[in-house]
Amino acid sequence: MSSLDKYKIQLYNTLSRSKEDFIPQNPDMVTLYSCGQTVYEDIHVGNAKTYVVWDILVRTLKHLDYNVKWVQNFTDVGHLTDDADEGEDKIEKKARLLKKDPMELVDEKIYEYYLSLDAINVKRPDIAPRATGHIVEMIDLIKKLIENKHAYEVDGSIYYDISTFETYGDLAKLDLENLKAGARIGVNEDKRNPGDFALWIKAPQEHIMKYTSPWGKGYPGWHVECSVMSMKYLGETLDIHTGGEDHIAVHHTNEIAQSEGATGKKFANIWMHSAFITLNGEKMSKSLNNFITIAELIEKYGKNVVRFSLSQNHYRTQADFSYKQVESHRKRYYRLIKSYQLGLQEIHRYKDQEFDVDVSLKSLDLFNKAMADDLNIPKAFLQINNAASKIDQFRKNGEFEQMHNFMRTFEIMMDVLGIPIIQLTPRETKNIDMMINLRIQLKSEGKYEDGDNIRDYIQSLGYVVQDLSKTETIWYKEEK
Amino acid sequence: MSSLDKYKIQLYNTLSRSKEDFIPQNPDMVTLYSCGQTVYEDIHVGNAKTYVVWDILVRTLKHLDYNVKWVQNFTDVGHLTDDADEGEDKIEKKARLLKKDPMELVDEKIYEYYLSLDAINVKRPDIAPRATGHIVEMIDLIKKLIENKHAYEVDGSIYYDISTFETYGDLAKLDLENLKAGARIGVNEDKRNPGDFALWIKAPQEHIMKYTSPWGKGYPGWHVECSVMSMKYLGETLDIHTGGEDHIAVHHTNEIAQSEGATGKKFANIWMHSAFITLNGEKMSKSLNNFITIAELIEKYGKNVVRFSLSQNHYRTQADFSYKQVESHRKRYYRLIKSYQLGLQEIHRYKDQEFDVDVSLKSLDLFNKAMADDLNIPKAFLQINNAASKIDQFRKNGEFEQMHNFMRTFEIMMDVLGIPIIQLTPRETKNIDMMINLRIQLKSEGKYEDGDNIRDYIQSLGYVVQDLSKTETIWYKEEK
Repeated sequence: MSSLDKYKIQLYNTLSRSKEDFIPQNPDMVTLYSCGQTVYEDIHVGNAKTYVVWDILVRTLKHLDYNVKWVQNFTDVGHLTDDADEGEDKIEKKARLLKKDPMELVDEKIYEYYLSLDAINVKRPDIAPRATGHIVEMIDLIKKLIENKHAYEVDGSIYYDISTFETYGDLAKLDLENLKAGARIGVNEDKRNPGDFALWIKAPQEHIMKYTSPWGKGYPGWHVECSVMSMKYLGETLDIHTGGEDHIAVHHTNEIAQSEGATGKKFANIWMHSAFITLNGEKMSKSLNNFITIAELIEKYGKNVVRFSLSQNHYRTQADFSYKQVESHRKRYYRLIKSYQLGLQEIHRYKDQEFDVDVSLKSLDLFNKAMADDLNIPKAFLQINNAASKIDQFRKNGEFEQMHNFMRTFEIMMDVLGIPIIQLTPRETKNIDMMINLRIQLKSEGKYEDGDNIRDYIQSLGYVVQDLSKTETIWYKEEK
Repeated sequence: MSSLDKYKIQLYNTLSRSKEDFIPQNPDMVTLYSCGQTVYEDIHVGNAKTYVVWDILVRTLKHLDYNVKWVQNFTDVGHLTDDADEGEDKIEKKARLLKKDPMELVDEKIYEYYLSLDAINVKRPDIAPRATGHIVEMIDLIKKLIENKHAYEVDGSIYYDISTFETYGDLAKLDLENLKAGARIGVNEDKRNPGDFALWIKAPQEHIMKYTSPWGKGYPGWHVECSVMSMKYLGETLDIHTGGEDHIAVHHTNEIAQSEGATGKKFANIWMHSAFITLNGEKMSKSLNNFITIAELIEKYGKNVVRFSLSQNHYRTQADFSYKQVESHRKRYYRLIKSYQLGLQEIHRYKDQEFDVDVSLKSLDLFNKAMADDLNIPKAFLQINNAASKIDQFRKNGEFEQMHNFMRTFEIMMDVLGIPIIQLTPRETKNIDMMINLRIQLKSEGKYEDGDNIRDYIQSLGYVVQDLSKTETIWYKEEK
């Protein structure tokens, strides 16, 4: 299937505040940069949700026949506790608290990042550069900005003069006049404009993570790393740049000023931003200490349910996290898997028979269209639910070829959303289904104690048994 | 137990070619640097063996009550195909073959490195720095060496003048006169002495992995990264520096010249080197294309047997790899585990009874002494074998407290060597043991076919059944 001709992809571009046709510069290779994690704290559910979104974006592009070169960074130096170039380096501050070397903390947190993100099936980017690996290139870019009169030095620190960059703030639709008026009292007096931001910061003597530069010992501002790492690996103009919506006003606005100020070329054609996950109505955030870690959630619900849960909702729709909702996602997930499993048993029984699987079903076409329409996951999910119903229906009717078609379609769609289809072995399935049926029968005869004994036994084998109704029970092995 | 007073550690120091008392500079914190992997190829068994050795060193130090700060690098730039500063960057060359970005290859290989090394229970170092993350610091060190008249520039490249460093070659007992006489014809004519080595190399236009420096675009020589990364995280004098014995003549010799030339201080108090693993009598080596990958070996024998196998031999004894030997290690491993498992069953039966475990056994004392004696693993293993025999003996005699003591001792000793004790659930153990005994009985009655049927059934459950003698059979689940 050459989907390129069939599916016109549209993506919502924060720059234009509208959906646009997606046309990569090189039709054979989409270049994609995603802002990654500042590695000093546990990964929370809001972070993970964002990474799941871009994983689905990459999977969708590949499903629709694009090659993708994907870079996502780790920030391991230069991210201050305060966006206005005040405060401390987040990593150094936390490391001091833990009495660790900052780089020891960084290595630990990168380890934990992959532990959780691998578990929930988020593919690794092609390149995962670290800021500390690109200090020389950052200094190069800053020199270029000074040369182009976009930046100035004050006592060993370098600032970007936002008044020199005509379209500054366009991405965020910033009102620069208001920005000036609203500038906080006591802001760094070295700056020509209150909105100027640091490219390089002079390091105090006691600062650990500092580097030799033409301007003395210092460390890079947070924003410059992403300009450098994206352009180094993907070229001066990216097809897509992604990040959380909290990056629009400062981080991405400054990336544009830096990159375009240095190259004179458009930095990114499409800017995609994912909405927050809130907790009790507030942004889930480490700095607000209002978060649930992804590791906790995986521990509680198993990696597959967590992946399913984070693959719901539209990426631009803000969602409030609740355990109740994850519980309901768990039920939905295992109901879907159950339909597939029951189909699988029939396929196993009929395995000698050759099926000519045809996945060009209307269902897959509708799914593809939904995903090509700015990753409309809720619409795409209708087709996954539909496929599960069809599997049930054709299984009951004994129409196994039709059933098989929908099973393959189901597999493909689940894979685009990165949701694993756990497989129970047929032997297990048969034995446990037998016991589950026996239990339903016993309960219908009023023999509740016998029924509960059977449930307890199945649970002692390591399965979860969950009653959906009086006559419908699902069971599953929860993979942690 | 405060072992510090009890066990005097001795380590073989390549510098003095003798065992020396180990006295860390700070009694509370041993500083240890290990040369790590150049990340462009699969990890082979010889590499893995080296990393297992240093893992055992760290485990031993911790077991004997030392804290350890352990740094092991990844080389992701600057390692040329030829030790004499000729040839290409290994990573860039391989990446070009694969049509990948060099950094994409690096990320893949670091991923695979951890996949295998985590599997065989090698602890991660506290910090795993990458060369590309320390270019600025390398330039700083090179500037210092130029200032100290140890280094000179020729057309954008910087070389170390080995004639300026009085003790050059001491580590390797190099005969510098012979070295000069034997210098290859056609060696780089820019060098003042044929043995001079590159600190910084001018990059040709088409070179990808290059950096801005005071001497133009270039890239660091291989050796400078380890001087920089070790001293950055561990201070100017290390307690212990480790590596493969192939590093003595060039890499470590040059590290000493660089570090001591810059600081004027002794670089490392103790240099430890592990012997090669050979294959068909030749060094196992990527460049010689004479190797078996660790991933292959794990796939074939399971991670635990591989760890057991690589935890044999003295680290300074060269060993020739053979599958036959791994097979014999597999048998030995499962025999040991079997003794422990049988003990475990009795403990489970007696689990209500309180045991006062005493691990201050003579056996553990002898084990500790062996490990404190320059990691004398073969001698230490005698105590592991002895503990397994004692577990058997006390189990048969019904002396469960004694048995329990040796089980705990066994656990501790296995953990120091990093060898996992796989645990079968008692339920499985009981059922399968019953069948195994039935099989032995059937065979003794001449009912070989029935016996084989039972073996096949047990194997169908995913276990390996292995006859050691007519009346002794072991079985195990092989963890991949």
